[in-house]
Amino acid sequence: MRRKRYLNKLSLKEAQKLFLEHADVGIFNKTENLSPRESLGRITAEPVFARISSPHYHCSAMDGIAVLAEDTFGASTATPLRLSKEQFVIIDTGDPVPPDFNAVIMIEKVREVDENTIEILSAAAPWQYIRMAGEDIVATELILTRGHFIRPIDLAAMLSGGVQSVTVKKKPVVAVIPTGDEIVEPGEIPEPGTIIDSNSYMLEAMVKQWGGHPARTAIVEDDFEKITDIIKQAAADSDIVLTSAGSSAGRDDYIPPAIEELGELLVHGVSISPGKPTALGVVDGTPVLGLPGYPVSMAIAAESFLKPLMSKMLGISATGKQKVDAFITRKIPSKLGSEEYVRVKLSHTQDVVVATPLSRGASVLNSLVRADGIMKIPENSEGLMPDEMVKVELMRSAEDIKNSVVAIGSHDITLDILADEIKASHPEINFSSAHVGSLGGLMAIKRGEAHMAGTHLLDEETGDYNVSYIKRMLSDMELSLINLVYRTQGLIVTPGNPKNIKDLSDLVRDDVTFCNRQRGSGTRVLLDYQLKQAGILSNQVDGYAREVYTHMAVASAVTTGIADAGLGIYAAAKALGLDFIPISEERYDLIIPDKFIQNPSLAELLNIINESDNFRKRVLELGGYDTRDMGKVIM
Amino acid sequence: MRRKRYLNKLSLKEAQKLFLEHADVGIFNKTENLSPRESLGRITAEPVFARISSPHYHCSAMDGIAVLAEDTFGASTATPLRLSKEQFVIIDTGDPVPPDFNAVIMIEKVREVDENTIEILSAAAPWQYIRMAGEDIVATELILTRGHFIRPIDLAAMLSGGVQSVTVKKKPVVAVIPTGDEIVEPGEIPEPGTIIDSNSYMLEAMVKQWGGHPARTAIVEDDFEKITDIIKQAAADSDIVLTSAGSSAGRDDYIPPAIEELGELLVHGVSISPGKPTALGVVDGTPVLGLPGYPVSMAIAAESFLKPLMSKMLGISATGKQKVDAFITRKIPSKLGSEEYVRVKLSHTQDVVVATPLSRGASVLNSLVRADGIMKIPENSEGLMPDEMVKVELMRSAEDIKNSVVAIGSHDITLDILADEIKASHPEINFSSAHVGSLGGLMAIKRGEAHMAGTHLLDEETGDYNVSYIKRMLSDMELSLINLVYRTQGLIVTPGNPKNIKDLSDLVRDDVTFCNRQRGSGTRVLLDYQLKQAGILSNQVDGYAREVYTHMAVASAVTTGIADAGLGIYAAAKALGLDFIPISEERYDLIIPDKFIQNPSLAELLNIINESDNFRKRVLELGGYDTRDMGKVIM
Repeated sequence: MRRKRYLNKLSLKEAQKLFLEHADVGIFNKTENLSPRESLGRITAEPVFARISSPHYHCSAMDGIAVLAEDTFGASTATPLRLSKEQFVIIDTGDPVPPDFNAVIMIEKVREVDENTIEILSAAAPWQYIRMAGEDIVATELILTRGHFIRPIDLAAMLSGGVQSVTVKKKPVVAVIPTGDEIVEPGEIPEPGTIIDSNSYMLEAMVKQWGGHPARTAIVEDDFEKITDIIKQAAADSDIVLTSAGSSAGRDDYIPPAIEELGELLVHGVSISPGKPTALGVVDGTPVLGLPGYPVSMAIAAESFLKPLMSKMLGISATGKQKVDAFITRKIPSKLGSEEYVRVKLSHTQDVVVATPLSRGASVLNSLVRADGIMKIPENSEGLMPDEMVKVELMRSAEDIKNSVVAIGSHDITLDILADEIKASHPEINFSSAHVGSLGGLMAIKRGEAHMAGTHLLDEETGDYNVSYIKRMLSDMELSLINLVYRTQGLIVTPGNPKNIKDLSDLVRDDVTFCNRQRGSGTRVLLDYQLKQAGILSNQVDGYAREVYTHMAVASAVTTGIADAGLGIYAAAKALGLDFIPISEERYDLIIPDKFIQNPSLAELLNIINESDNFRKRVLELGGYDTRDMGKVIM
Repeated sequence: MRRKRYLNKLSLKEAQKLFLEHADVGIFNKTENLSPRESLGRITAEPVFARISSPHYHCSAMDGIAVLAEDTFGASTATPLRLSKEQFVIIDTGDPVPPDFNAVIMIEKVREVDENTIEILSAAAPWQYIRMAGEDIVATELILTRGHFIRPIDLAAMLSGGVQSVTVKKKPVVAVIPTGDEIVEPGEIPEPGTIIDSNSYMLEAMVKQWGGHPARTAIVEDDFEKITDIIKQAAADSDIVLTSAGSSAGRDDYIPPAIEELGELLVHGVSISPGKPTALGVVDGTPVLGLPGYPVSMAIAAESFLKPLMSKMLGISATGKQKVDAFITRKIPSKLGSEEYVRVKLSHTQDVVVATPLSRGASVLNSLVRADGIMKIPENSEGLMPDEMVKVELMRSAEDIKNSVVAIGSHDITLDILADEIKASHPEINFSSAHVGSLGGLMAIKRGEAHMAGTHLLDEETGDYNVSYIKRMLSDMELSLINLVYRTQGLIVTPGNPKNIKDLSDLVRDDVTFCNRQRGSGTRVLLDYQLKQAGILSNQVDGYAREVYTHMAVASAVTTGIADAGLGIYAAAKALGLDFIPISEERYDLIIPDKFIQNPSLAELLNIINESDNFRKRVLELGGYDTRDMGKVIM
């Protein structure tokens, strides 16, 4: 069991400094010449000077007549002046002013007397309404400095200045090397133990976004020699080399030793989380970035090291993401010694923007997809306290976030359908949700983090849902409880139900193993209620103590044979092709504080809930749902 | 002289509403299927659901050993526990957890006893360090709603979720039709009376930026029938039609009548400035935008109508430009009845950002290139007063503006060279300048609008430059005056000097016509001083009253035969291939308030002025400059 340690563990700033300085990339000096038309979005490598003036002749700025100003002196309303055929020329905007004339009179100010004579009521000042040559751009003038990002207007200014070729930086060629025995190409359904390579395609896309040309290689297995060979080759062929996975200090982590073998390993281990197992070095003068294999770690490491490197090579300032000030309503602990990047959901639910943390796992790419921004907790902090203001780097536009309705609470797939339906009719509205369970949703409403919360909490005393919990926990708030759906909870079992499970009473059988949900979840509350009704004690159920956190995790446990049965919704069983034994119908409601009811985006969402046949149809097609009270105000 | 009136003149909001509603573009329904890899930057047309879970099996989250948690119970530092060969399996991150095991222990916590035995010092909780199937993405879960702009992380999430094809909106095909008799393709040096087509290429680039596919046609002359034919054809072939120029109400403006002939002309004339002569209509169900020919007008009209139209078609929210609050220090008049778009330079010279207006001409594209942002003066306002706070839409990133050193004052081409030199060594620093003449520069410093001002104001009493003006106008400020260059002013004359002009005394000759600079310019001050020295009265000089505003305008006047001579710098003569008779050397200095001297970006600029051989070399190569005192502190 060969094990290595991290070479060093540097702070983000130290690692960036060491890498960018020692990677010895000056400003990238490969250039190419393009026509202005092809140059959109590229970076100038040399200053661009005008070859001709624009306009390149004195031209009329108006439709009208060209005159000699001196001929018009004395004209006024009281003393109209007539000009004869030789004294004027009809001229349009952009026409050259003939040599003997020096002013233009607007056509609206000109009265036609006859074919050869016109009359004017005011004198023209010399050079009025004439665009002098060079008014816009003067030949030899600097149009763009080097290091300029070319926009549509820049491209037009170059063309106007007679520029036919612009020298831009070449796009740096960035090799992307996916590694790992378990990695497979996207394609058919993967075998257990294999992982679809999404990382290298994410890197490809990032390289494109940041102005480079990606060159992805085939997947390389975890073999020191093969990895060494391909990095050496890529370093010779490319301007930057990226590897995906194998960058930590484990048994099969061959990237750091490969860099060490071929060149210099500058950084191994950065005190950021996610993103720690990053390895940075130089091979034959080419920067090599060994990026961690967990997708969130990789995305953060790429933002932290690849983006500034590419900006430096292209000679542009690395523009950071837009930041907003946000307010946190809860304690957010963090490990000392690591700068932590916390994905957050942002909501305009208070006078200030409120940030709510999402899943912090390095492997949970979906939480990065769903995040509105990233909040950084410094290395020397043990975390943040409620009511702190924090800076959040935005992952989507501030405008999009402003138009978002945020739901935090129990998750149900109908919320996803709702998010899609609102987009179909109102592209400008975002409905975004974070999943923290029913009780978490009530807390989010209490803290003012969300516009609404999905909840399905059974009151064991009354058999009713949600109301008593709200009365207990949110008594001081004006709010509405609106039904979204009824859904069927039931036992999820192996396809074909080989153990012939019929209801909860089968859970006490010796040959049946159960998989449970966590305390505080609506489903757990339901199970405990149902067991009590059936007179079953929890210690009679094998596996009662095994807790998982989602309906799908229950279904997974059954699929993989860990359990024979678990309680969950029909959609979870259907998703994994499992059998389903209905046990009980539960009410899934939305809690909405009254102060948000007038919010125009929320009003549109409620409109769909209340009115849309298409939404109802899509929900019913999922199976296991009833929409009879959809939109009904419960309290 | 056939003349038309505008059909209607609507406010921007009215025009946008009328056009977007009547253009009858619902959300664009042409779609195509792409692999996730090809989908970067596209917009989903349908929701994307996961086909498989990620991970799709229970896998280890650590390098370590897989165990059955129950086997490890009781292990502690005091009571180490040994596990035999059958009780554990070595496992790496990402490996599937074998069916009989339910926990992972990190390798760092495992001690090897012998080949078949290991020892642990703490118990494992069931399911610790195991990523349950579906932890990241659950099969059937919604990954992206429709109307979602696909980012690198989205692409990776789709691949992880087993998605192999994503339905995205097609890029709308946007026909771009350049019109005008005087318009020529970019190529050789254009004849007088012809204008290089830069507009249609700017539109092409904008269409690309906003998610469309441009289809530019050949240039069409100002002929009603030809224009009608091509619009009809383009409306049949494309999703949007754009025309460039010919949209006003003049003699050759055939676009509005062509739209009227073929379909419905909805808007003709919008009360924005620049941008008024915009014509909007629909032909055979296809929106047609007749955009004005002046480049700034066109850019603003395209932002105002094309961008929201394309966003609506693509079903995305039209993200506005980022805005900042800025402070104006001067009165900015504006015409009632028109919403005016004023290009501004922004500077971080005070506690708040300060905005200074740039040229307001619709034809001056270069001022749009140089602008940091656009400030809108409402239709019902006669202008803004000093000390008002205004909203400015940014044209470059807030970060770039923060790193900018702003010079406002007399222009000299060495400032452009300096702007390029700083980019060569410090890509993150921008040196941006606005040209308002020497006295304007002193005023800008007084108002706190600029970090520095270029100035060359001769004191007729003393023969010295700048100092006495500063003492008079900026007496209450702590500042430094630093020399940039000496430059030679002289008479710019026709190539070969056919009139044999030798010095200023020739300006009194009957056969010599002069072109003058405006009052308040440094060059005018110099001329008056030199004439006085030579005992020449201004009324003896033919053309003394003809004022133009730049060195280049003087050179242009000579080139085009309007004048035989004018006073200006060598670079202007050289630019247009004219002869030059040196008259006098003048000092061109930079005024820098002391409070900015510590500004790190400014310090780097001063460093180049003080130290850079390359900068000196480039300045000297221009001709007409002396750098002997470059960087010297004058006061």
